[in-house]
Amino acid sequence: MFYHIKELQYDAKPSQPDPVYAKKLQEILGGQYGEMSVMMQYLFQGWNCRAEGKYRDMILDIATEEIAHVEMIATMIAQLLDGAPAHDQEQVAKDPAVEAVLGGMNPQHAIVNGLGAQPNDSVGYPWTARYTIASGNLLADFRANLNAESQGRLQVVRLYEMTTDPGVRDMLSFLIARDTMHQNQWMAAIEELEQSQGSVVPSTFNQEYEKQEVSYAFMNYSEGEESSTGRWANGPTLDGQANFEYIQHPKAMGQKPKLQPGPTYIHGTPPLEMRIQRGAGKMDPNNQQ
Amino acid sequence: MFYHIKELQYDAKPSQPDPVYAKKLQEILGGQYGEMSVMMQYLFQGWNCRAEGKYRDMILDIATEEIAHVEMIATMIAQLLDGAPAHDQEQVAKDPAVEAVLGGMNPQHAIVNGLGAQPNDSVGYPWTARYTIASGNLLADFRANLNAESQGRLQVVRLYEMTTDPGVRDMLSFLIARDTMHQNQWMAAIEELEQSQGSVVPSTFNQEYEKQEVSYAFMNYSEGEESSTGRWANGPTLDGQANFEYIQHPKAMGQKPKLQPGPTYIHGTPPLEMRIQRGAGKMDPNNQQ
Amino acid sequence: MFYHIKELQYDAKPSQPDPVYAKKLQEILGGQYGEMSVMMQYLFQGWNCRAEGKYRDMILDIATEEIAHVEMIATMIAQLLDGAPAHDQEQVAKDPAVEAVLGGMNPQHAIVNGLGAQPNDSVGYPWTARYTIASGNLLADFRANLNAESQGRLQVVRLYEMTTDPGVRDMLSFLIARDTMHQNQWMAAIEELEQSQGSVVPSTFNQEYEKQEVSYAFMNYSEGEESSTGRWANGPTLDGQANFEYIQHPKAMGQKPKLQPGPTYIHGTPPLEMRIQRGAGKMDPNNQQ
Amino acid sequence: MFYHIKELQYDAKPSQPDPVYAKKLQEILGGQYGEMSVMMQYLFQGWNCRAEGKYRDMILDIATEEIAHVEMIATMIAQLLDGAPAHDQEQVAKDPAVEAVLGGMNPQHAIVNGLGAQPNDSVGYPWTARYTIASGNLLADFRANLNAESQGRLQVVRLYEMTTDPGVRDMLSFLIARDTMHQNQWMAAIEELEQSQGSVVPSTFNQEYEKQEVSYAFMNYSEGEESSTGRWANGPTLDGQANFEYIQHPKAMGQKPKLQPGPTYIHGTPPLEMRIQRGAGKMDPNNQQ
Amino acid sequence: MFYHIKELQYDAKPSQPDPVYAKKLQEILGGQYGEMSVMMQYLFQGWNCRAEGKYRDMILDIATEEIAHVEMIATMIAQLLDGAPAHDQEQVAKDPAVEAVLGGMNPQHAIVNGLGAQPNDSVGYPWTARYTIASGNLLADFRANLNAESQGRLQVVRLYEMTTDPGVRDMLSFLIARDTMHQNQWMAAIEELEQSQGSVVPSTFNQEYEKQEVSYAFMNYSEGEESSTGRWANGPTLDGQANFEYIQHPKAMGQKPKLQPGPTYIHGTPPLEMRIQRGAGKMDPNNQQ
Amino acid sequence: MFYHIKELQYDAKPSQPDPVYAKKLQEILGGQYGEMSVMMQYLFQGWNCRAEGKYRDMILDIATEEIAHVEMIATMIAQLLDGAPAHDQEQVAKDPAVEAVLGGMNPQHAIVNGLGAQPNDSVGYPWTARYTIASGNLLADFRANLNAESQGRLQVVRLYEMTTDPGVRDMLSFLIARDTMHQNQWMAAIEELEQSQGSVVPSTFNQEYEKQEVSYAFMNYSEGEESSTGRWANGPTLDGQANFEYIQHPKAMGQKPKLQPGPTYIHGTPPLEMRIQRGAGKMDPNNQQ
Repeated sequence: MFYHIKELQYDAKPSQPDPVYAKKLQEILGGQYGEMSVMMQYLFQGWNCRAEGKYRDMILDIATEEIAHVEMIATMIAQLLDGAPAHDQEQVAKDPAVEAVLGGMNPQHAIVNGLGAQPNDSVGYPWTARYTIASGNLLADFRANLNAESQGRLQVVRLYEMTTDPGVRDMLSFLIARDTMHQNQWMAAIEELEQSQGSVVPSTFNQEYEKQEVSYAFMNYSEGEESSTGRWANGPTLDGQANFEYIQHPKAMGQKPKLQPGPTYIHGTPPLEMRIQRGAGKMDPNNQQ
Repeated sequence: MFYHIKELQYDAKPSQPDPVYAKKLQEILGGQYGEMSVMMQYLFQGWNCRAEGKYRDMILDIATEEIAHVEMIATMIAQLLDGAPAHDQEQVAKDPAVEAVLGGMNPQHAIVNGLGAQPNDSVGYPWTARYTIASGNLLADFRANLNAESQGRLQVVRLYEMTTDPGVRDMLSFLIARDTMHQNQWMAAIEELEQSQGSVVPSTFNQEYEKQEVSYAFMNYSEGEESSTGRWANGPTLDGQANFEYIQHPKAMGQKPKLQPGPTYIHGTPPLEMRIQRGAGKMDPNNQQ
Repeated sequence: MFYHIKELQYDAKPSQPDPVYAKKLQEILGGQYGEMSVMMQYLFQGWNCRAEGKYRDMILDIATEEIAHVEMIATMIAQLLDGAPAHDQEQVAKDPAVEAVLGGMNPQHAIVNGLGAQPNDSVGYPWTARYTIASGNLLADFRANLNAESQGRLQVVRLYEMTTDPGVRDMLSFLIARDTMHQNQWMAAIEELEQSQGSVVPSTFNQEYEKQEVSYAFMNYSEGEESSTGRWANGPTLDGQANFEYIQHPKAMGQKPKLQPGPTYIHGTPPLEMRIQRGAGKMDPNNQQ
Repeated sequence: MFYHIKELQYDAKPSQPDPVYAKKLQEILGGQYGEMSVMMQYLFQGWNCRAEGKYRDMILDIATEEIAHVEMIATMIAQLLDGAPAHDQEQVAKDPAVEAVLGGMNPQHAIVNGLGAQPNDSVGYPWTARYTIASGNLLADFRANLNAESQGRLQVVRLYEMTTDPGVRDMLSFLIARDTMHQNQWMAAIEELEQSQGSVVPSTFNQEYEKQEVSYAFMNYSEGEESSTGRWANGPTLDGQANFEYIQHPKAMGQKPKLQPGPTYIHGTPPLEMRIQRGAGKMDPNNQQ
Repeated sequence: MFYHIKELQYDAKPSQPDPVYAKKLQEILGGQYGEMSVMMQYLFQGWNCRAEGKYRDMILDIATEEIAHVEMIATMIAQLLDGAPAHDQEQVAKDPAVEAVLGGMNPQHAIVNGLGAQPNDSVGYPWTARYTIASGNLLADFRANLNAESQGRLQVVRLYEMTTDPGVRDMLSFLIARDTMHQNQWMAAIEELEQSQGSVVPSTFNQEYEKQEVSYAFMNYSEGEESSTGRWANGPTLDGQANFEYIQHPKAMGQKPKLQPGPTYIHGTPPLEMRIQRGAGKMDPNNQQ
Repeated sequence: MFYHIKELQYDAKPSQPDPVYAKKLQEILGGQYGEMSVMMQYLFQGWNCRAEGKYRDMILDIATEEIAHVEMIATMIAQLLDGAPAHDQEQVAKDPAVEAVLGGMNPQHAIVNGLGAQPNDSVGYPWTARYTIASGNLLADFRANLNAESQGRLQVVRLYEMTTDPGVRDMLSFLIARDTMHQNQWMAAIEELEQSQGSVVPSTFNQEYEKQEVSYAFMNYSEGEESSTGRWANGPTLDGQANFEYIQHPKAMGQKPKLQPGPTYIHGTPPLEMRIQRGAGKMDPNNQQ
């Protein structure tokens, strides 16, 4: 269950409206790696968590914080949209400043949302639940989380570069700092799990059942060999089980596929015999274009 | 540019048809973490790569391999669908075995694809490009890749548990082994990048500009404190810059938001005065329901 | 900002696992009118609210409650999935009971979510932000909310009919009761707003500018006239401004559209002259199939 | 079955082309609350209608009218796109007027549709059937319809404010008037149904089975109490069955969830014992990064 | 503008309910090549048509017919759903016949649509406007239409094979016949346009500006040469302009791409120098995990 | 299996950056008829192909070429984005040239992709697998392919008109030429199949089972008769089986639908009797609003 505190986690006060920037800021609200994604991802990971209590508690703590981040950004966007102009094209032609704003705005901010934030990204694409992952395997999911916080901090930093508004930058500097923490947090949790269960996910599958001759081989599927010079092709593997192998000219190990014709009730391409027969019987001029 | 070799990378030969399993196998073909996702993700990361050549080459090598994985699974699915029945419900009632198959099949495998694979997941949801990421920052993206290979191997292992067909298991054991390699590969590449640039993404943002007082603090947004016992709340942070701090009762640091009324041409909720006035003037019985 | 309480708002304890029912229950979690929809809809309406404080407070109170509803249903689904079987088709043929379960399960519950809830509906379609609305006009939005609670309660009632599990029914009886309250709540808020501002949204548009001759006319676009017998075609209109009129044979009032040919750089269908000319000049046997 | 009349229901004649406005106008064609949505929603409600004939007839009458609205707006958009420029960026730099148009246009209007309307909204997102609802319960659905006409009229009014073109405004004034009628129509139909069956949907569920102690209680999930001053917290409930109750400090009524570990074939997070054991056995330096 | 006739274009009377078949039949209602797709595609092509009147008239005639097809299938589905059972899993275990139905039903047909048709396909995926095309070039679009009618008739035929219900087959035999006509219709319209404007779309682009040395060459991008034996590699090209050429070993004609590093404000992968420098300066034990 | 060649199939070298054009060019990369669509469509058609080897080989040859086209366009877009500005709105106001670029850019090119290509279309909508078709019937699918190459060449030509950059035009002239070939290729393959199996898809359905009286009739569903003057209403049908018939006033041939009330556990609209009864019993003033 949840309670709401009316104050924001941190200030969301733009120095002045900027409807064009509001459109861009939507990316970290409703985009693939926006705050809605981590909020929903952590909530579902927490609610589905079958591991010991400290994990469930930790995941739901950060999930609850992320709701507050969505709240901050939504509040910021609504204020950036204050006083967005609603003029027609003719007037725009006379005032390039208005035009700059109108051309760059998301039209739905005015038409659909009445100058409010929307749960979409910077091109207006709606947030979708397919952005989230809760697999039931915490090591797998913590890697998803570390990725999300990495992409997320990267995007916030890029948005920081795109404005000079001190109020907006102040809020972003807070989010960037929290993403620093959250990257560290997931790295710490990953380290803890890897130390006890190994680093290949899932660790519970008996490796004897995998085709072990290709478990540590880098395959070079191109004509050059620059790819042979990286860590991934040299030295011990990261799971400590073997050494990397570099296969210069990987060969096909499988069959040349040949599918059976489908059954007649599927009405696929008729078999060759049937086509030839029919074609033969229809050689009159009216038959085909 | 690409060339095609007619043989598969590895055998894809089921021991017998199994249209119900074909539906499930679609998950690792066109699902969020299926082979189409890693194929497209690596292709775009490779084509967009602005770093030195060994990275571009390595990424495109694995991308090219993933096209072959999509090919193997598609070939397997087409064969699992061989001889899928097309009976009506009345006949089904008489033959429970047929019914078991028909009830569990994806109807589109017959109606839309004529017993062929489709670029969708196990519930028929189409693959979407929003599953991919190519951010232009390799450390961020390699974390996305490690996550994808972790979720991917987990799903293949689960599918391995759901069948006893030796042919299917043979192919899956190959894919599981390659995912072992690919997890190791991305861990190695991540290690290489982290050693030279640090572990917080992006490393090029000057940390002085982030709100540093919250950069390493775990905030406990719930009534209990189990979350205080993990590695994420104790000891040095993983980026080596500080020690984790645990905030038991985090306080709101921001304003209580109060938005201005919108301009009249937006036709939002009318201000209170206007509503009261109008309501007053309309107190005749016909006015309201 | 938000805090999390570890206890659920109300009990979510199934009497026994039922993975098939878990699939159906997803509808009220991640469906068009599931709890995720009202949660996100109310959160955005609250954060964007530009009206006086009691509205913002009320909307965010119910929004916060809805997060708890999502939590309850997710928790219920995870438990309904406990012990879901993972057998292959051959074994299934021998045990129809297992088959009944496997055939009716959502395969992603096992493959993707490891026996956890997912933010999708009962056919596996992901929740999308296009389900939500926050228009900036409270009367409009409260009608959206009343609709959502009506569809929502209807769906929960249907799911109540589909199970006899006392634990599941207990939780659903709580949700049904809350939906009774929430329908009443939005009806009350609508009544309050309609009394002060009138019932046509938006009330701030000057009706002189609308084409008033058709503002209260029911147009009969079919050959019969059963539609003339409803309240919508007789008596005073609900906004108290006029009487309903019934137009038996509505006539077209507009032009017969005729579009100009597109400019040449668009390469649309070539104008007739150009086609005739070219056709004439190309009447050699090689030109067309 | 349907017949087509070549004349439009009402004139759709812009005074001059305006490709930027054409993009915005797409919102009320293919947006969430555009004419395509009501057209498809009413068609499906009518075709699925199991109530007496006057409802089916009325719903299909308005559905048929909505097809004509889609036709009018599509025709308008095609004309607004007449003569859209196709210049390159260099030329644009020299002529800011052209640039204003090109920058604000939807590029697909030229590239994909050859200066024609598209079934998408103002940010180019395609119309989706998930916008519609036909639940089989008319009172529920009429509330969906009243909401759709409210959001719809609000959006048309906002678009009216964004242009001064007399031809466009003329068409919009017609649509606004019809939306006035349609709001009244659904309010009338709702009133009729509520009078006979009660106002809580569905009325056929025996309220004894719902958890009645929370059926009329407003729960205050935040620290302040402004929400106590509205109609929703005072006086008789709108269904006439009780009085609203205000719960200042709602308590959790449910369990603290604790999920069982998943079965081994799901390969979730390994149980703690297994992790500790494995970790212990692998404390050699090669094992972990 | 449109009028509605209460009678269906053709009978839609199933001999008995069959909720499982209802799910499958959704494919030709709301699927990629279902009747909704051709209905919307033809409507938009007609409304956007800038060619002479006979084309616009013809397209809108068939569009209007397709609305009637949607109506017929929706009506059929609602009747196939009559009396769908609503039992819980326990009862199901006792009655395999009920189970067969419940397991194969689309759960939304009951929960969301109350035994009505929905605008979705056979796996419950919603119809999307991205299925349609109206390019402004009739020859291009008529090819899209011929394809749609070909895929459509194929799917209806497959559904015909999946039932023995005489009433359902009667309706499908009507739809199959109309698709025979519609394939012929689009072939006729294509022939007419190709004769006057040539067969390559768009015919108005000056072929001198295309890279003509590859305009008629088949490129063999695989190790075998079976592809050399088809009509596409031998004899005159279908546009009558040249002869097909077969290139056994196509060579790359382009550059080896090398992208510039991104600007610093994009925060992509840091250049090598910067990484080495930083790595060097950070070789203290606390720095990296 | 596949191999990668580091050189592009053809040069992709813009003369100078143009971030606005990069946005437009996305249409032929990740749009409905972009290169990703034909790449995936041909790959799946090839992998699912159950016909003789020359078809499978041919389809996979062209599929492999299309991967190279995606590669070329992605490479071009990355270079067009070189040096895209990242300024805030204030600076923009001072420099209209920067503004022109910023306003017209896709913001995700900077925020999400770090100046790289993305697998989306020109309005940022992600590529979806629902764009593809592989039906198992080659004649049907080759028509889909001919359509795709027709729409594709049309779009490339339109993009050619929108730029004067010689490097971009050079690459586009190559793609246009290949689309000329590909249209010819599919026309040739279609001709070959039609000659042997007839032109109506599927040819294997016994036409005696279709409702033959409407198999060749054009139905005029509008008040005028311009549609009677086309090839589709006169002369022999294109399949050579009959002559076209023109039906001036098509009549409804079906029933007037009347659906049964739903079962009580569905909670649809209550039957009239129940509503009247209840309404009567509730005529006390508290009952209804």
